[in-house]
Amino acid sequence: MGYAALTPDTLPARLGGLAALTDRIGPASGWQVAEVGDGNLNLVFIVTGEGGRVIVKQALPYIRLVGDSWPLPLNRAFFEYHALVRHAARDPGRVPEVFHFDEEQALIVMRYLTPHVILRKSVVRGVEHPHLAQHMGRFLARSLFRGSGLALSGKVLREDMALFCANHALADITENLVFSDPYFAAKLNRHTPGLEPFIAPLRADRALRVAAQEMKHTFLAQAETLVHGDLHAGSLMVTPDDSQVIDPEFAIYGPFGFDVGMFLANILLGYFAQSGHEGTRGARDGYRQYLLGQFTEVWQVFVAEFGQLWRSERTGLLYERTLFEDAGDAAGAEAALTAVLRGIWVDALGFCGVELHRRILGLAHVEDMEAITDPARRVPCEARALEAGRIIAVMRGSLGAGDVPFLVQELERTIAR
Amino acid sequence: MGYAALTPDTLPARLGGLAALTDRIGPASGWQVAEVGDGNLNLVFIVTGEGGRVIVKQALPYIRLVGDSWPLPLNRAFFEYHALVRHAARDPGRVPEVFHFDEEQALIVMRYLTPHVILRKSVVRGVEHPHLAQHMGRFLARSLFRGSGLALSGKVLREDMALFCANHALADITENLVFSDPYFAAKLNRHTPGLEPFIAPLRADRALRVAAQEMKHTFLAQAETLVHGDLHAGSLMVTPDDSQVIDPEFAIYGPFGFDVGMFLANILLGYFAQSGHEGTRGARDGYRQYLLGQFTEVWQVFVAEFGQLWRSERTGLLYERTLFEDAGDAAGAEAALTAVLRGIWVDALGFCGVELHRRILGLAHVEDMEAITDPARRVPCEARALEAGRIIAVMRGSLGAGDVPFLVQELERTIAR
Repeated sequence: MGYAALTPDTLPARLGGLAALTDRIGPASGWQVAEVGDGNLNLVFIVTGEGGRVIVKQALPYIRLVGDSWPLPLNRAFFEYHALVRHAARDPGRVPEVFHFDEEQALIVMRYLTPHVILRKSVVRGVEHPHLAQHMGRFLARSLFRGSGLALSGKVLREDMALFCANHALADITENLVFSDPYFAAKLNRHTPGLEPFIAPLRADRALRVAAQEMKHTFLAQAETLVHGDLHAGSLMVTPDDSQVIDPEFAIYGPFGFDVGMFLANILLGYFAQSGHEGTRGARDGYRQYLLGQFTEVWQVFVAEFGQLWRSERTGLLYERTLFEDAGDAAGAEAALTAVLRGIWVDALGFCGVELHRRILGLAHVEDMEAITDPARRVPCEARALEAGRIIAVMRGSLGAGDVPFLVQELERTIAR
Repeated sequence: MGYAALTPDTLPARLGGLAALTDRIGPASGWQVAEVGDGNLNLVFIVTGEGGRVIVKQALPYIRLVGDSWPLPLNRAFFEYHALVRHAARDPGRVPEVFHFDEEQALIVMRYLTPHVILRKSVVRGVEHPHLAQHMGRFLARSLFRGSGLALSGKVLREDMALFCANHALADITENLVFSDPYFAAKLNRHTPGLEPFIAPLRADRALRVAAQEMKHTFLAQAETLVHGDLHAGSLMVTPDDSQVIDPEFAIYGPFGFDVGMFLANILLGYFAQSGHEGTRGARDGYRQYLLGQFTEVWQVFVAEFGQLWRSERTGLLYERTLFEDAGDAAGAEAALTAVLRGIWVDALGFCGVELHRRILGLAHVEDMEAITDPARRVPCEARALEAGRIIAVMRGSLGAGDVPFLVQELERTIAR
């Protein structure tokens, strides 16, 4: 049979013959199925049997958030599967285990994560996850380093790049929704009423529009490594001790800085949303400090881990040891590392800036802000994030790793209080 | 039948049934065939019939320069064919017309260029081609702009990128021979006896080795457009009025600056070789000035043509008119253009520098230097080119378009006279 979307009613009959499921959770006769997808694109089922639970994720031939007026290829499940396999190999234990993949049905059966919650919901509630920065700094360094020409041969890299080039429909969404739509009155945009006085000057800022397009240029053309492609706080499931990276269906070859910048932006969105969630002013001050600490620590851990991989696993075609360590010039390798890390940081800031904008002005918003029910409280939160994004993107070449927390605290203190 | 290399004896029988040939040059019974390949990789036949001549180019399953110990995939003919088709569409009339392509036989039948000569031979003889810079500046701008995200959609670009990713075996040659081998005692290297005092400090220069690997990183990862990939003075056939770009079998997605820098380097190689070819000192002064004029003019023409295309044909996904001209901000588009051109120039200088080195220290040398039969005269020519390459690569971020001619004239005047 060809592709057909699953329903809770049809799922047991259609998947009940798969040993990958029945071995784990028992026979289909005992299954209970609940559809729980709350993302923008897919069906997600929790299947509970007598022996346990699994997740069944199936792509829909259109964007769930918009409806069947916006078709989207089913092959994104193929790219999600291939990204999950690569992530599992590059940072073992940081992504859910895949039990079964069906390309025609655009369907992945994977581990049910429990007692994990979506990171974004924790941030809205003000719940700390002290190990998050460690987990994510390492995941970013490992997945990005090990997927690049620093670790791979040109042949392996270009063959894999060719495979992921076919995921251009998802990249097209990023290219339009992240880098362009927020900066003009695009049809799919929406924003909080009352935010207009902050939007007009943003869209009038020539340097910002140029910066956003430079980041789009970088996203399109700087094919350094396999990126997750959608690493926001909704793509992470966490417990006090664990962090799991899910939903890499936007995976494509792109710049080192992309996932880093997207993740950093989502920490800042959480930061700026806090004043909309605190009962009394200052009640979330401690949580704000925690978030800024996570922001700083993610980058510190990334730098440390990337540097360690640079020194121990640099077996790809770039910056060969033959020319540095093996020629008695380890310092040359360190100098090159410094320059590469600087480039990643500058790109990450550029992506961080545009992500802040598109989550407030574009199609896909974030619960951090949306959960602030009173627009009068939401507007200043969003205004601060917009201005932070503007400065971070435009001044990305000048900002050091320690500058951003000072910047955002000053914006929190001064804008629209 | 499977692939079999042609010989002058077998060619008429094997290709005599092709209307693409017989319609042009008459029946195979009247053909005369000469093998004239003097390149590094392929068989090239001139086939003369009663009605005219054509070129038949066939890939060999190994590198001709080295022998069958170094196998090389036949599919490079496929990429050459596809690059020729794209170049013909992007800058009509600047590449030889293709009459027939046979993928299995790795064979392209194309126009016989007459009375064209290989540009490099003209440079050795001191023959001027006053229109060369115009032709090449326009070719570079048109082929690179029209093959990029400035002109194409993300879908078209990524699908084409996937196709050319499969040309990784040729890219691997560039990655090793251009960016790495010259900077250590690699097995395939060779150099002029007596040059050693200039090589040791070059290979000891940490900043240069880092710069060379940064350019390798850029070549691998900055997939901005379809590049020719091997645009040296042996890939151009010229007359007083015409220039034809041939041999794009190294075509792959790479940075805008790659072809530009390779071509500029080959002008400088010609420049530094002149003192080895002049009968009396200064006899080629006028020709040296002509070459520096061409160097300057290629970039000027490139900037002018790229700018015109930017203003008139910017229909791709990058720097959309919606965000600039259509929003009343043409100046924003000009600002973005300036930054893009600056990036191309800096990259071009980096590639120019390493090309100067690899043509003197690596496997594949150039006739400009090799034709200087007396090593005592060749060494200073090569020493100057090495130093020029070092400064250009390391200082690429600081050198303006007008600086290079002053630099090379000073090196010509001061080194090893």
